[in-house]
Formats: sequence, structure tokens, C-alpha cells
Amino acid sequence: MTLLTIDSELCDREGACIDSCPHRLLLRGPDGFPVERDDAASLCIRCGQCVSVCAKGALTNHLLEGQEFLDKSTLNRAADPLAYAMMTRRSVRTFKRRPVDKAVLKTLFGVVRYAPTANNSQKLWWIVTLETEGTRNLAALGLDWLRKTYFPDSLDEVWTGDADPVLRGAPHLLLCCAPEDYRWAATDCAIAVTHLELLAASRGLGTCWSGVFLRALEGWPPLAEALGLPPGQKVYAGLVLGYPRHEHRLVPPRKPAAVNWR
Amino acid sequence: MTLLTIDSELCDREGACIDSCPHRLLLRGPDGFPVERDDAASLCIRCGQCVSVCAKGALTNHLLEGQEFLDKSTLNRAADPLAYAMMTRRSVRTFKRRPVDKAVLKTLFGVVRYAPTANNSQKLWWIVTLETEGTRNLAALGLDWLRKTYFPDSLDEVWTGDADPVLRGAPHLLLCCAPEDYRWAATDCAIAVTHLELLAASRGLGTCWSGVFLRALEGWPPLAEALGLPPGQKVYAGLVLGYPRHEHRLVPPRKPAAVNWR
Repeated sequence: MTLLTIDSELCDREGACIDSCPHRLLLRGPDGFPVERDDAASLCIRCGQCVSVCAKGALTNHLLEGQEFLDKSTLNRAADPLAYAMMTRRSVRTFKRRPVDKAVLKTLFGVVRYAPTANNSQKLWWIVTLETEGTRNLAALGLDWLRKTYFPDSLDEVWTGDADPVLRGAPHLLLCCAPEDYRWAATDCAIAVTHLELLAASRGLGTCWSGVFLRALEGWPPLAEALGLPPGQKVYAGLVLGYPRHEHRLVPPRKPAAVNWR
Repeated sequence: MTLLTIDSELCDREGACIDSCPHRLLLRGPDGFPVERDDAASLCIRCGQCVSVCAKGALTNHLLEGQEFLDKSTLNRAADPLAYAMMTRRSVRTFKRRPVDKAVLKTLFGVVRYAPTANNSQKLWWIVTLETEGTRNLAALGLDWLRKTYFPDSLDEVWTGDADPVLRGAPHLLLCCAPEDYRWAATDCAIAVTHLELLAASRGLGTCWSGVFLRALEGWPPLAEALGLPPGQKVYAGLVLGYPRHEHRLVPPRKPAAVNWR
């Protein structure tokens, strides 16, 4: 089955769709147009980023046909800034290399410390990489883990060039940590990272939850060693962060809310 | 040690501080002024709600002396609506009995479905109590659990009258559920509930994470039975929700963000 139709009259060959697919199902073809991998239809997660990031409207994803992509410009940001932030936030997979000023990052944490914690325990703390070099070293260690596990034969085939499946080429990694023996650690960290993500989006920054990194951290001792956590502390959640390389014009569809009213 | 000083010249005996203390460390004294329980200083979680909810500025909490309470009216909501929502959101412990229109609740879920989920899995679903009666039955079952565990002798002494330590007298309980065998269930649910909480606060609704209820659900089979979850599904996070009985004038202090810059 073909996953995507690309209108070559409209396509400007910018490659935003190639960069934005979380599983890198698109590659650049010989004439510059995006072409899908053979296994694209079976691996697509229906996130709709390929369609929503295309400035020209050149792409159709057949798994999402007939579903509603909202035009961001029709949403009233001023009237409902929170709904706007929640609907337009995207999981960004390609970043500009330019780091974010430490002063900007500090203002985010100045707000995020107000996120609720169970029984007001405030046990969270953060690791933030500032130097792109330091971030890249962690990404390289995560790549080693991916090579050993998910892609023992094909990692370098799929993730060609400087594409980075671990930290997505972002200049910063922000990890939320808490004591291992604290019952609400995972919840408190997820709440704080959610505040961080929404606030960052409202300031034009891009983020993506670093699930692959967290799994690598669990499965790959050299990575845990490089991170050097104090004893008894654990990373529970985290984001990559930077300036997004592409802007999304549309809001991809989501399933209707499933609510069991009682 | 005395925890609180109450200026009886300023105190209007409205009792907002009594209602708002999460651990009910304040009781109404014979002359109507709040008086602290003997164990107040050792049980206080420094949330600052007693101080922040007092319209008259009649209260000093000595554990928070010298720390900065921000006046909400000095924050610029229009200039930075997300930071405003994150800083002024409170964990509400006393609600008006009036239920929230189902139509209003539906609009919340219409936005929350855009919250990110791992690999765009969108496996979440919700249980929402609409009838106050149904909510009260769940609270009563949670109380049974508290009587058996935390307060075998003293529950009814401390939580006098209609005070409800489980669901805080809120008209609605909103529970976020996902498959038990889904690796990112807890994180996805915490993200969605965080979106829900912030969005609700921006609409004048009050919420509080229902940690006590979740613990009761784990420890008390009659409660799990009453909830009647489908096999293989689990509640991972939830909120009580309603119209707050009191408004907070101030933003209580929080610890500075602990960031390990790398």
C-alpha cells in the first residue's frame, strides 16, 4: 500500500516532511522529491506531521484521509491562549543548531517550579545540557544502544546523514530527576515537564519528549555512567529543546476524546 | 511551636483558611477565629494556602516567614497567559456544590485530546462522574479505606462535619485510564491530566490531583469494584473538579528551581 501522495506540481522540495517524520519514513529521492520507504504504510503512527508541516499543501497521507487538519491561522490565540498552546504544540523532530540562551532557559524554570507536586514535596531537580557538544555525546551513546537493540543491522541505512533518532539534533536536553524511593516521582516529573513543554512552545521553542533517551538510559550502562546521577536519584522524564527548523501550518487530527460519563 | 499567627483585628472569621488547608490543621475556635491543631507545625506541608487564600492578610505562617508571596494582581495575565496559568493554578480543597455543565466539561476534553502521547498511541480514556451523588459514593468508599489505614481512631475527629479528605467535596471526579500493559501509560495520563488542570484553571474552575483516591483504589477492593474498570485497564491519574469556594489572592512561594547545568 502507498502511504503518501505527493503533488509534484505543488511540492517545493524543501524537505520539511522528510525532516519531520518521527520514524524517518521519507527519504529524499534522486530528483529531490520525497519518496516513502517500502515499509512506510506499516510503520506510520498517523501523527500527521508530514502533512501539517508542508507549507504548500502538497502531501496527502492516506491513513488520515478525511480527517480534519485545522489551519493554525483560524485558531484564536488571544481569546484562548491555553487551548491554542495545547493544540498547536508539536513534537519537534528537527532543530536549528543554534543553542537557546541560558537566560531564556532560566526563565522557563522560574515558572515551572510552580507546577504541583504531591503533598507539596518539591523533590524535583533538573539536568540541562548547555553545550551542544555535551548533548551530542549523550546522543552518540544513545545511538550505540539503538544499534545494539532496535536496529542491529540497519540503523545507519535508515538514519542517514546527520539525522539523530535519539535527541533529534536538538541543542539541549532537559531531564527531570527525583529520588528513586519517592512514590509520586514519575507523576511529579511528568507534570513539571508538561508545564515546561507548553511554556517553551508559547515562546517559539520546540520540544520533544525524550522517550528513546529514557529507554537507552535504562538499557545501556555507559550512558548512565556518562550522565553520572547521584546515588538514589533517577531520571523520570525529559525533553529535547531548541528552535524548530520548520513551522507547522496545520494542526494534525486526533481521535475524539473517549469519555465514560457516569 | 506555634505555626500560625492570626491577627484578630484583621481576621473576618470567614474560614477560608480552615477550608483550604490540605491537612485540615485549622479548626474553628469557639469565638469563630481559626485555631491550629496541636500537631499543626509538624504536619504543615508549607503549601502556603492558608496565607494566600486570606482576603484580609490576617495570617502569618511561620514556616514560610520571609519567603515571597506574590500578589496575583501584579502578574500580567495578558502578556504571558501560560506563565500566569501555571503560577496561579492552585490545588483546590473546597468546592461549591454546584456541578459544572457537561457542555463545559466536553470542551475541556476537546482540547485535552491534543496532548502528546508516546508514539502518538492515543490509548487514553476517561471516567467522569457527573452526578454529585455518584461522586459522593466513591468518596464514601475512599473514606472507608482511610478509616482502616491512616486514621483508624481519629478520622472523624479531624475531618469534622462535611469535610471530605478523599474528593474534597468536589462535584466531579475525572479519571484518566489506559491499558495496564502499555509502557507509557502513567506518563501519557499525567500529561493529559496536566493539560486538563491548566485549561480548567484558565476557565475559573478548580481542581486537585486525586492522590488519596488513587491510593484508596489500589488498597480497597470495594472501591475498585464500584468503579468497575474493564479488564486490563487501569486508572493512572485523576482530578477532582468544580467551582472553587474561595479565591486565592496571593501566589504562595516555591523553592528556587534546582538545575544542574551541564
